Amino acid sequence: MDIREFVKLSIGRWRSQRSGHNLAFSHFEEVRSTIDIVSLAGSDGSVIELCKSAGIDPAAAISPFSMSWEGRSDWDEEETMVGSCVLVPIPDRDNINQGKLLRSQGYAETIAAVGDYYFTSDGTFVLLTEYDRAAAEERIWFATDNLRFRFSSIKTSDGKGVVTASFASEIRSLSGN
Amino acid sequence: MDIREFVKLSIGRWRSQRSGHNLAFSHFEEVRSTIDIVSLAGSDGSVIELCKSAGIDPAAAISPFSMSWEGRSDWDEEETMVGSCVLVPIPDRDNINQGKLLRSQGYAETIAAVGDYYFTSDGTFVLLTEYDRAAAEERIWFATDNLRFRFSSIKTSDGKGVVTASFASEIRSLSGN
Repeated sequence: MDIREFVKLSIGRWRSQRSGHNLAFSHFEEVRSTIDIVSLAGSDGSVIELCKSAGIDPAAAISPFSMSWEGRSDWDEEETMVGSCVLVPIPDRDNINQGKLLRSQGYAETIAAVGDYYFTSDGTFVLLTEYDRAAAEERIWFATDNLRFRFSSIKTSDGKGVVTASFASEIRSLSGN
Repeated sequence: MDIREFVKLSIGRWRSQRSGHNLAFSHFEEVRSTIDIVSLAGSDGSVIELCKSAGIDPAAAISPFSMSWEGRSDWDEEETMVGSCVLVPIPDRDNINQGKLLRSQGYAETIAAVGDYYFTSDGTFVLLTEYDRAAAEERIWFATDNLRFRFSSIKTSDGKGVVTASFASEIRSLSGN
């Protein structure tokens, strides 16, 4: 697995079933959402802008994509969670299996973020992102071409306490709806 | 990470918060449980019996342990789920990082089972177990010495369909209670 293949497999519409665990209070959250992952051209204005704001040559970008989501949590069934972001992988020059991932909007905080990614020996994508007040870890792996699992956890910025963990099962919407 | 270190880190009492995902029906299950993992001597009768029933020399066993659990699901709050099993790692002769794991009681079916385990490059323990009608995959990794995550999925025996996935956050009970 490398970043090109990983992004290629990820393109499409996914039906996501996510469980959030608040570790201190043993609370569960249930979120159902639809996630759309769309390939972007390297020449797309949003890709070039994101690279420039991070001080990186847009020519180094590989397989940029956008992600948008629309979901509902059982904690607040009245409110729909919607959002989108642009993601740009920048592999290391000597190793496509690791590098940086630029995001126009981060997971833990709603500002642009730069994370470090790598693949484990069995093809799991691991992304580590440091924010001002927190650090996030994400792990995504494919069970089949049409089923992927996504783990994420957020630690306090001192790295000592994991405060939340979440796990999503994501099934490809083959109908396109 | 190798099997000795992994078992050593796992010994103790854990407070587990587990989410089950039924993928076909998008159902969530919430399970709270207490898990006790206890080291066993290689000379323990249950270890020797399990090795013999699998046709394996008990001298090949490394770090055998027992696991017991008591939990409640939000699907049936009246019923307490209790159980226990004996687990015996049998590392490959030339590689302690992979091998077989004998269980007196399996995850997907309540009969003895033999699984294959290995560790990924970043220390995740992966266990694959084939049953008559299903195949189970488990992944366990430590975020800190006192927090581990456990993923499991069950596929139909033809390997095509993942029917359930679950994810547990497990926090060490430092009080011993």
